[in-house]
Amino acid sequence: MSNKPSIPKGTRDFSPIEMARRNYIFDTIKDVYKKYGFQQIETPAVENLKTLIGTGGDESDKLIFKVLNSGDYLAKADKKALQEKNSTGLTKSIAEKALRYDLTVPFARYVVQNQNDITFPFRRFQIQPVWRADRPQKGRYREFYQCDADIIGSDSLLNEVDLIKIIDEVFTELFQGNLNYTVSINNRKILQGIIESVGESDNFNAIVVAIDKYDKIGLQGVYDELYKLSLTKDSAKKIMELMVSKVIYDDTRVKYPNKTDLELATSVLNVLSKDIADTINGKKGIEELEFIFEKIEHLGVKTANIIFDATLARGLGYYTGTIIEVKIDNFPSITGGGRYDDLTGKFGLKDVSGVGISFGADRIYDVLLDHDLYPEFKGDSTQVLFINFGEKEQDYCLPLLFQLRDAGINSEIYPSSAKMKKQMTFANNKGIKYVVLVGSDEMESGKLTVKNMENGEQENLTIEELINKVK
Amino acid sequence: MSNKPSIPKGTRDFSPIEMARRNYIFDTIKDVYKKYGFQQIETPAVENLKTLIGTGGDESDKLIFKVLNSGDYLAKADKKALQEKNSTGLTKSIAEKALRYDLTVPFARYVVQNQNDITFPFRRFQIQPVWRADRPQKGRYREFYQCDADIIGSDSLLNEVDLIKIIDEVFTELFQGNLNYTVSINNRKILQGIIESVGESDNFNAIVVAIDKYDKIGLQGVYDELYKLSLTKDSAKKIMELMVSKVIYDDTRVKYPNKTDLELATSVLNVLSKDIADTINGKKGIEELEFIFEKIEHLGVKTANIIFDATLARGLGYYTGTIIEVKIDNFPSITGGGRYDDLTGKFGLKDVSGVGISFGADRIYDVLLDHDLYPEFKGDSTQVLFINFGEKEQDYCLPLLFQLRDAGINSEIYPSSAKMKKQMTFANNKGIKYVVLVGSDEMESGKLTVKNMENGEQENLTIEELINKVK
Repeated sequence: MSNKPSIPKGTRDFSPIEMARRNYIFDTIKDVYKKYGFQQIETPAVENLKTLIGTGGDESDKLIFKVLNSGDYLAKADKKALQEKNSTGLTKSIAEKALRYDLTVPFARYVVQNQNDITFPFRRFQIQPVWRADRPQKGRYREFYQCDADIIGSDSLLNEVDLIKIIDEVFTELFQGNLNYTVSINNRKILQGIIESVGESDNFNAIVVAIDKYDKIGLQGVYDELYKLSLTKDSAKKIMELMVSKVIYDDTRVKYPNKTDLELATSVLNVLSKDIADTINGKKGIEELEFIFEKIEHLGVKTANIIFDATLARGLGYYTGTIIEVKIDNFPSITGGGRYDDLTGKFGLKDVSGVGISFGADRIYDVLLDHDLYPEFKGDSTQVLFINFGEKEQDYCLPLLFQLRDAGINSEIYPSSAKMKKQMTFANNKGIKYVVLVGSDEMESGKLTVKNMENGEQENLTIEELINKVK
Repeated sequence: MSNKPSIPKGTRDFSPIEMARRNYIFDTIKDVYKKYGFQQIETPAVENLKTLIGTGGDESDKLIFKVLNSGDYLAKADKKALQEKNSTGLTKSIAEKALRYDLTVPFARYVVQNQNDITFPFRRFQIQPVWRADRPQKGRYREFYQCDADIIGSDSLLNEVDLIKIIDEVFTELFQGNLNYTVSINNRKILQGIIESVGESDNFNAIVVAIDKYDKIGLQGVYDELYKLSLTKDSAKKIMELMVSKVIYDDTRVKYPNKTDLELATSVLNVLSKDIADTINGKKGIEELEFIFEKIEHLGVKTANIIFDATLARGLGYYTGTIIEVKIDNFPSITGGGRYDDLTGKFGLKDVSGVGISFGADRIYDVLLDHDLYPEFKGDSTQVLFINFGEKEQDYCLPLLFQLRDAGINSEIYPSSAKMKKQMTFANNKGIKYVVLVGSDEMESGKLTVKNMENGEQENLTIEELINKVK
């Protein structure tokens, strides 16, 4: 094989500079998670296929990468499916394992499997890659990292408050006040209440899917979708009122910039409550949202715009209460999450409520790059390079090199006495700030010639002076 | 599905305390790598199958986990293999992708693919999981982490010196002087020289396999294996002399503890050179080893025992020069590596020499655990917990909680006013040092009751005093 090597579609290599940027994002998120009492876990990349399938519907099952059984896998293959060349039917019998497609299902499995060792409420965070057999496109990969935090075993809404504050802290840190971002909050129970109040619970999923498209297709679009579902005129009208409340809300925000997030949310919630407060779900949803907005108002935020978005649906996931989504202008969701009441039920542990968020590291990466918001990553690369002039000089420099390293300074010697120009180019390309030149003069005097590659200045320094300078 | 969930054989979950220990190992290795000028990269978990197969022989190919193509994979399946139920024959046509089984092959692929953007010599490190369809057993997993550092694009032996010093630094840091460990060094060219000198180059692989078993089967065992290969008496004798040199070397070390590593190595190398110095490979191998031992002697080591082991073979890998292995008593290799002259040739880039090492994080984990060598991981968990006595108290505590967090202190409030005992148990189980109790007295005075969970002592502190105390 001598053709140019490549990597699978939708996957990526990360170069040193890309790694430095990614680690900066991960470390920022990790530090905030820890400050809020979250503890890290990791789960295997490969789960049993039966753990993963059936959690997100057929469409999700198709997105799962299956791992072929080792050895003579055809010996135990489903004969009928094999004969009929039925790929879908055959899979289970030749692939027992699969790559995880999110961190939430493995976490639910982890909680059930380790329930006797876990102290609930359990605040866990997890930063690992996931894999999806999606069609790759700009900003969508087949291997990407998720940065999840969940609190499981508590239905207290203080957990939601913590998660919203975490979002505020992370983006305050990453954006440094240079970017506007909006944390939209809704509650699935309000959607349920509306749909219940018009007697269309059977159409719940289809209606949510229609509402979810608002950002893309607008008011008229949603109305057309609802029309297709053959709702009665009254039902469609009430649901459209929900949509309109979002428009009114957005208008009010612009018109009255001095109204607080809580005041704005309350005014819309009041309107909504006329319609849905007599449904149990609707009432509960409104109460929950009010609690969250009150606490956030009480505690304040650093840089987030917090808004109530009655049309936020977040797809057909497992959410049952609060839902959260973070957006910046002209960019798809960069963080999202919500509350789920029965995530572990599939694995035999009932009635455990949880709530979580997931930062989309890859999208955040692009946003920071587009807006030039990365700090300089000095400590990450080599700081000092000894130029190699030959054996004698090299032997003189080696102990000095290790003195620098012992002082915690990232340093190297060029490994051979290559041409000066080549060695200097190496220093330049690697972004090394100080280059040390040692010839016979320097060996005699013990004063090293140190060149600052950023401004071209040269100095004569002892090794101790060099250490102090770099530190 | 309500049966107890499980994870695939040979894979593991990592709990918070396990993660803290693993991160400690990774961070220690990372910091040393950076100090030596290495830069981090990452490659995808999934590579094209054709990138991975054929690098380590048929046995290695069997250990590769293949990823089933998505969609109707049988439509493009090899018809003949399907009809004959030939699993091995079918695989390539239904699985284009596979999980990497080491970090070296993906690195070689990365170098070739990005050769125009890389500054050579390239010092890269990479810490990621790999997967092998091996039979799981104690200390051997199907998913495990490798921590690799390689220098590619330089044949300077200074690189070997750096790698040996890195090993010394990492284990000095991790073992804190409490464990004896040995860095064995050999050179493949010496093995080649010996085998050439007796005219048995055709039997090279078989002889290396026999020598490699010395640790398990002893001198007589190796002799029996060589006998099976029908070597001439003279050939077998010369090879056995190599083996005996190892025994003599070990004896000499015990008898003359004041001899330096260099002196010991030199004496054996002198004996060997009588036999092999007239083969090009043998001469080169001896020169290379002498250079490395001289430099290490010159620079000194912190805690490593460095020995020359003429019988070290490190299997049938791609090594062509120096080989390195680290062992502690009664434990298999915990780190290994070596030089390879043609790793990138498979991908069309010839004559690029490289050298690298790989720390076995999972084995190091077990060693540190067995010998109780982990530090305490305080900063990793919650430091302060506010007990929740009800709504009024909770609202009073919330802003204080955020003052702690803003001061960088990991802290939480119990999310509901559960029974006191339950909340205290939570604090105990999570290893939280300080618990804050706020009732009506505290709210009035502004002095919080702070209980130290380690010694039971209670104090009354303002929030500022608490912050200072914890910091």
